[in-house]
Amino acid sequence: MTTNDAPAAAPAKAPAKDPWELPDVSGLVVGVLGGTGDQGRGLAYRLARAGQKVIIGSRAADRAQTAADELGLGIEGADNAECARRSDIVIVAVPWEGHAKTLEALREDLAGKLVVDCVNPLGFDKKGAYALKVEEGSAAEQAAALLPESRVTAAFHHLSAVLLQDESVEEIDTDVMVLGEVRADTDIVQALAGRIPGMRGVFAGRLRNAHQVEALVANLISVNRRYKAHAGLRVTDI
Amino acid sequence: MTTNDAPAAAPAKAPAKDPWELPDVSGLVVGVLGGTGDQGRGLAYRLARAGQKVIIGSRAADRAQTAADELGLGIEGADNAECARRSDIVIVAVPWEGHAKTLEALREDLAGKLVVDCVNPLGFDKKGAYALKVEEGSAAEQAAALLPESRVTAAFHHLSAVLLQDESVEEIDTDVMVLGEVRADTDIVQALAGRIPGMRGVFAGRLRNAHQVEALVANLISVNRRYKAHAGLRVTDI
Repeated sequence: MTTNDAPAAAPAKAPAKDPWELPDVSGLVVGVLGGTGDQGRGLAYRLARAGQKVIIGSRAADRAQTAADELGLGIEGADNAECARRSDIVIVAVPWEGHAKTLEALREDLAGKLVVDCVNPLGFDKKGAYALKVEEGSAAEQAAALLPESRVTAAFHHLSAVLLQDESVEEIDTDVMVLGEVRADTDIVQALAGRIPGMRGVFAGRLRNAHQVEALVANLISVNRRYKAHAGLRVTDI
Repeated sequence: MTTNDAPAAAPAKAPAKDPWELPDVSGLVVGVLGGTGDQGRGLAYRLARAGQKVIIGSRAADRAQTAADELGLGIEGADNAECARRSDIVIVAVPWEGHAKTLEALREDLAGKLVVDCVNPLGFDKKGAYALKVEEGSAAEQAAALLPESRVTAAFHHLSAVLLQDESVEEIDTDVMVLGEVRADTDIVQALAGRIPGMRGVFAGRLRNAHQVEALVANLISVNRRYKAHAGLRVTDI
């Protein structure tokens, strides 16, 4: 039986950095591709409300502008390419169906950017939601394959778009699992998540372990149906 | 972007049962196959400490007996077949490598039993843990395929064997995601999880969504390494 306990410590080396010591990201511009959808709009709203500069991206600039105007808080709208170019961190919140095509088209605009994929490849039938097989392993790994010059991470999968968009909700009671290959990048995404009241960014592994984090949304949908809830996740003992 | 919010309500029908109304399972005998391993031993200890009658199963009856004697609390030891036959609920906590073979050999002994698979098919290399591909989709679905006459569920994946076995730990601060096809069965497993102080059994979907729950242990291992913790999971808003 494999348990989740950490293996024996590695050989002695420099003291580990405090995992909760995260950079100041308050000055970074955050773009949200697919920012006119429920999840993207909700994230844009929460980040702007926390004081972050946010640009909503959409295929059509006017639709992005309309969404930005509706949300206020200094949010701007632009087409996806301009959104990518003007942002330091780019959250990918497009529908799974358009994921590969959208990212391929933005490869140059996203070069050098910190990309945060939050897409959950799911199918639905009469029995509810289920995880789709993704050739690259996960949406995040597909992003990494399509964007070799970007710094790809994965996060923000387990959020309720209803809660994100509900202005009367002051705090979002959930941790955000952050995955990636480079600590400097995952630290930034953790810090970004931590800007939203109630949220905490938690490092949760490399991109090769993104599939199960994405797919777990199918389970949260089952939880929400059974308990009539907007479930999130907290990691205990940290 | 697919979010985790529940779809619109189904057409009007009989009022839904209270999801927290669970059966009394205190009189059921719980067997633990692979009960001499860390996870099995930890679960056996916690359940017996909560007042449940527990039988530890192992390939060798004498090894099971030794483990039972060490734990006390009225726990008995037996070979796997006897453990299965004498139990109402049988937790499968064997190593993934022996999973299929063990269950195949116990098909008749497990007929009619409520089987709870808690096996996590993981591989390890220099970069840490990763999810193994399972032909049937997950360990739980493999169990269901091999045990057509049993009532197969999945649960208890995300527990720290260290915490389970630490007698000084009074409460285990985690929810237990319970998966299965039949509500009467998942209700029983939820109730069983709820017997352990601090734990709560939460319905989290059908067996076809077991893979990601099993695989998520790889992420918890990353969490444990980064934060020097014994992480568990809580579902929020329920």
